[in-house]
Amino acid sequence: MRIIVDAFGGDNAPGEILLGCVQAAKELGVDILLTGNRSRIEQEARDLGIGEELQKMEILDCPDMITMEDEPTSLLKAKSESSMAVGFRALSEGKGDAFASAGNSGALVVGATMIVKRLKGVKRVAFAPLLPKSQGFFMLCDGGANAECRPEMLRQFGLMGSAYMKKVMGVEKPRVALANVGTEAHKGDELRLEAYELLRQCPDIFFTGNVEGREIPFDGADVVVADGFTGNLLLKLYEGVAMALMSKVKGVFEKSLVNKLAAAVVYKDMKALKSSMDYNEYGGAPIMGAAKPVFKIHGSAKASTVKNALRLTRDFTQSGVISDIAKALEKRDETV
Amino acid sequence: MRIIVDAFGGDNAPGEILLGCVQAAKELGVDILLTGNRSRIEQEARDLGIGEELQKMEILDCPDMITMEDEPTSLLKAKSESSMAVGFRALSEGKGDAFASAGNSGALVVGATMIVKRLKGVKRVAFAPLLPKSQGFFMLCDGGANAECRPEMLRQFGLMGSAYMKKVMGVEKPRVALANVGTEAHKGDELRLEAYELLRQCPDIFFTGNVEGREIPFDGADVVVADGFTGNLLLKLYEGVAMALMSKVKGVFEKSLVNKLAAAVVYKDMKALKSSMDYNEYGGAPIMGAAKPVFKIHGSAKASTVKNALRLTRDFTQSGVISDIAKALEKRDETV
Repeated sequence: MRIIVDAFGGDNAPGEILLGCVQAAKELGVDILLTGNRSRIEQEARDLGIGEELQKMEILDCPDMITMEDEPTSLLKAKSESSMAVGFRALSEGKGDAFASAGNSGALVVGATMIVKRLKGVKRVAFAPLLPKSQGFFMLCDGGANAECRPEMLRQFGLMGSAYMKKVMGVEKPRVALANVGTEAHKGDELRLEAYELLRQCPDIFFTGNVEGREIPFDGADVVVADGFTGNLLLKLYEGVAMALMSKVKGVFEKSLVNKLAAAVVYKDMKALKSSMDYNEYGGAPIMGAAKPVFKIHGSAKASTVKNALRLTRDFTQSGVISDIAKALEKRDETV
Repeated sequence: MRIIVDAFGGDNAPGEILLGCVQAAKELGVDILLTGNRSRIEQEARDLGIGEELQKMEILDCPDMITMEDEPTSLLKAKSESSMAVGFRALSEGKGDAFASAGNSGALVVGATMIVKRLKGVKRVAFAPLLPKSQGFFMLCDGGANAECRPEMLRQFGLMGSAYMKKVMGVEKPRVALANVGTEAHKGDELRLEAYELLRQCPDIFFTGNVEGREIPFDGADVVVADGFTGNLLLKLYEGVAMALMSKVKGVFEKSLVNKLAAAVVYKDMKALKSSMDYNEYGGAPIMGAAKPVFKIHGSAKASTVKNALRLTRDFTQSGVISDIAKALEKRDETV
């Protein structure tokens, strides 16, 4: 399998991206095809002492890159020679099996939709991060690609999330739930009322009804369905509350000398806890609904997280989840 | 000042409500007027050993109560002789200066709107909880009263929240921000785009723009404006993530004997931290926009939280915040 990787996406590009790619090539049995400015990549590789490993990787040389400040649609015109645009075209042309980038999320959604294209019948691609719950992870779909949604999009988010959790994460019968302000069927706004009915009638998923915010971190569901506006606020608040709380815990441990001694005792366990709550460590989020696997690596990823993300990209690609979604949509005549 | 208290609202009614009222009467310099079944109240008071204190409180005897399962609108017809309905009518008729209940939030919104009535010009009353941030508290407005909102409602939520934070919480120049998926003015759905403009043009508040989920727990704003659907999901996720994380921290401390010893050292500080993150301990949430002060005590409140809630109710009533809101709306000709 060959994964195309954007060498110039994310806060720590290209150094940490290249280091992660070298680890992935060694440990995961994948080929890497890099996109980006060749001379800068080669220089960085030499500086990092991975020049030799880099020589085994093919590079698609291109001069430009997309920044966080660029308009997502710039990918199609002004930035069509950026490392991300070139990566998308390479995927579309079959030069690799999947594309992964830690760059501008909005641009990734644009590229998945306009260059790789959606699967036949898919109304919108979704940004679908995996978040920690009391046991394991749940998928939030959509986590921010679509600020305005129609009910049938929410049904498809449930369908796509379910396929992913089953095929990639090994959850036998993923529980799909709609993020809402109460558990009863009549709760929420118009969008929720209609989406509830569509999800309930969808034969390809195990819909468990509405899930409230309080239950989401407590194994409330395997797939949490939301419009992208709500999903993005939930995603970021989740992260914010966890960070705020862990920093307060840190404050307790630094308060006095005896507290510091206590901290030393539980240090390792606390560190593990912190990682388990940090969705960034998990690697990233698939873009669901594109015709080929596109994966968003976390923007702040360091080498080990990049490697994790590439493992997820590999699993996503091998899983057959995309053809499962295609079949489910065909069966329901949504591709007509 | 006289506060009317629903003796039969919440998970721990009437016992903890009565105990809280007795504490409040002693410590806060307020009179309490109770609503509910007189013989049950008197029996409970005797059992709790507060029979004497109870004798100083007037009781509006009524046979019924609203449960969490009742439809909110049942307050107006089937449950018009409930302790909550009787409390609302007592407030409306001037038998007290404020009304507080730990019962069904939906019914409280109905009663504030239909019995006490909205302030002239107010489009919707809002449920406005106070949540902890890195320093102090912020008000979330609306936290769940209105699943569907128009832009001008969001502007009023900002105006009302700002008046509360200034007058009751003593924040000199409250920063009002719109919960959104990005900080730039063009972010979000139609509702957000229009609300942004209205908030920006509102002369009575200090609007600081959009706030993302990640910043909300980190002193992102003093008033976070949201439609009730988004607000309720944010409120409950906030609580859920904090609870999930604290239970994981507890797990670390119980993991081994040495960890337990470390826990003993930091026990007091950790407990204080837990309280500081628990919005339930703060007491409750005002219903903003009603013509008279209505206060929601947390449903699971025990006596000390009931007392805190009654302190907040007293401060809300004394603050003049309602007449401030009335003046701001008059000035803008919204009362016409």
